[in-house]
Amino acid sequence: MSTQHRRLPATAVIREVGLRDGLQSIATILPTEHKREWIRAAHAAGQREIEVGSFVPARLLPQLADTGELVAFAKTLPGLFVSVLVPNLRGGESAIAAEADLMIVPLSASHAHSLANLRKTPDDVVAEVARIRAARDAAGSKTLIEGGVGTAFGCTLQGQVDKQEVLRLMQALLDAGADRVSLADTVGYADPAMVRDLFEDAVKIAGERFWCGHFHDTRGLGLANVYAALEVGVNRFDACLAGIGGCPHAPGASGNVSTEDLAYMLGSMGIETGVEIDQLLALRQRVAGWLAGETLHGSLWQSGLPKTFGQSFATA
Amino acid sequence: MSTQHRRLPATAVIREVGLRDGLQSIATILPTEHKREWIRAAHAAGQREIEVGSFVPARLLPQLADTGELVAFAKTLPGLFVSVLVPNLRGGESAIAAEADLMIVPLSASHAHSLANLRKTPDDVVAEVARIRAARDAAGSKTLIEGGVGTAFGCTLQGQVDKQEVLRLMQALLDAGADRVSLADTVGYADPAMVRDLFEDAVKIAGERFWCGHFHDTRGLGLANVYAALEVGVNRFDACLAGIGGCPHAPGASGNVSTEDLAYMLGSMGIETGVEIDQLLALRQRVAGWLAGETLHGSLWQSGLPKTFGQSFATA
Repeated sequence: MSTQHRRLPATAVIREVGLRDGLQSIATILPTEHKREWIRAAHAAGQREIEVGSFVPARLLPQLADTGELVAFAKTLPGLFVSVLVPNLRGGESAIAAEADLMIVPLSASHAHSLANLRKTPDDVVAEVARIRAARDAAGSKTLIEGGVGTAFGCTLQGQVDKQEVLRLMQALLDAGADRVSLADTVGYADPAMVRDLFEDAVKIAGERFWCGHFHDTRGLGLANVYAALEVGVNRFDACLAGIGGCPHAPGASGNVSTEDLAYMLGSMGIETGVEIDQLLALRQRVAGWLAGETLHGSLWQSGLPKTFGQSFATA
Repeated sequence: MSTQHRRLPATAVIREVGLRDGLQSIATILPTEHKREWIRAAHAAGQREIEVGSFVPARLLPQLADTGELVAFAKTLPGLFVSVLVPNLRGGESAIAAEADLMIVPLSASHAHSLANLRKTPDDVVAEVARIRAARDAAGSKTLIEGGVGTAFGCTLQGQVDKQEVLRLMQALLDAGADRVSLADTVGYADPAMVRDLFEDAVKIAGERFWCGHFHDTRGLGLANVYAALEVGVNRFDACLAGIGGCPHAPGASGNVSTEDLAYMLGSMGIETGVEIDQLLALRQRVAGWLAGETLHGSLWQSGLPKTFGQSFATA
């Protein structure tokens, strides 16, 4: 048994995706003014990357119809890096016009899930990323492009997703002009050993362009998976306040890693996130009020921070 | 960043402690016949270590008054290793008389918690272990003695618990004649980095006599902590079916790691536990019926096993 410690990253970024991945999966349509308050308070609590919505037709996702307005608002907050999801070139053009800092193009490595969810094959999405890149460059825009490879650990429709296919698609996204790539456990199939295995190879391929891990907590392993990713040097994670979210095309898949529990785990380990957890918990309470009747997740809000939080354990 | 993989253990044992740590923390008093069914079904599902109760006065814990009867029953099941908790010599004598396979003597490394919970200092408990060892040897009994160091990562009463004090007490328990030692995060203060740090030192001190990790999921980090312990070679963990449990003297501390989620994580990583998860989930449903009105925990029972469970990911 090796006793060598992997050094954990000194800092990490929690990208808030509750306003997109969270809200798109629940019935409640949050008024724009509440979303603004959420973004404002998350920024005040120290969050510096927020995915504020998705440029998709309002008839498909009325919950996110105000994405343009939210990008404009979020960009007024100092130091906030504003992301949006875009499913295609048309969405990409909207993101470029809105001057988002980053647009995430989702690709599903599961062909079955890709066809069901995006009505495209994974390679069609790669081709679309090339078109988005061309449009971005033609516009002289600075909006970064992230290719997000979902169902990277398996899929509720087709079952197993080949690891080499996940890595091939990630490489194809980079070749097509994605500035960043990320991996998502869309349906909560990952375990820490899988994460270590896949993320290590992904980081070898993409280097600094490997951007983010996105874990759902469907089977309770979300934070264990984050820890495994930290051990291979990944230090940016998507999370949803109150653990809302899921995937409408993945039966039983509910709940992203909760922002507040993730902030607690990282903070407890001495990994700097810049997030004030007390403020985050106060915000959670307000959002929970707005989302009355929806199923929320997370543990920290019930138990509160340990008395010892912020004190060093290793040197005790 | 080191890219060297720590090899995970090939096998692991889940010690079911729901009948003791779980039931002692909730109001429902489960009839002995239901407990027998629980033990029988857990054994049928492949569990081979069960803590069936605690030899404490019935007036203190009426929930566990039938411990002697349960030890006798559990010992009739082939290959089942039967544990009980004993707070003192008198309990130890009962465990010896009942011919339990192992008795766990809890020690709280937090002086404040120790006085509140056990009305003894930690060193008084060490002295009691020496007396239990003497009684065991005098009786020619084969009942093993495990010294369980609780509040090993901090305490809701006194806050920080000195790591060197935890290790000193563990060594003192070994010196006093404990055959095994274990560490418990009684109040859910541990994070994976703490676990790695403390467990690595503990294993160095106790070697093969380091027996078990006991994690509460109070703040959602239970399974991440198990993963960190696996990485330093520990492969026996306490867990409660449906995540019941807690500590009556630790406000807000609720929920052990749930047996079924732990079995899923271990099984998903290819770590052999001998546990049939489908049978465990069926048992959980029965126990949930018996405990109607109590707060239960866990994720897997809601989402079910992944379609890919049991298939190898790394070789895909």
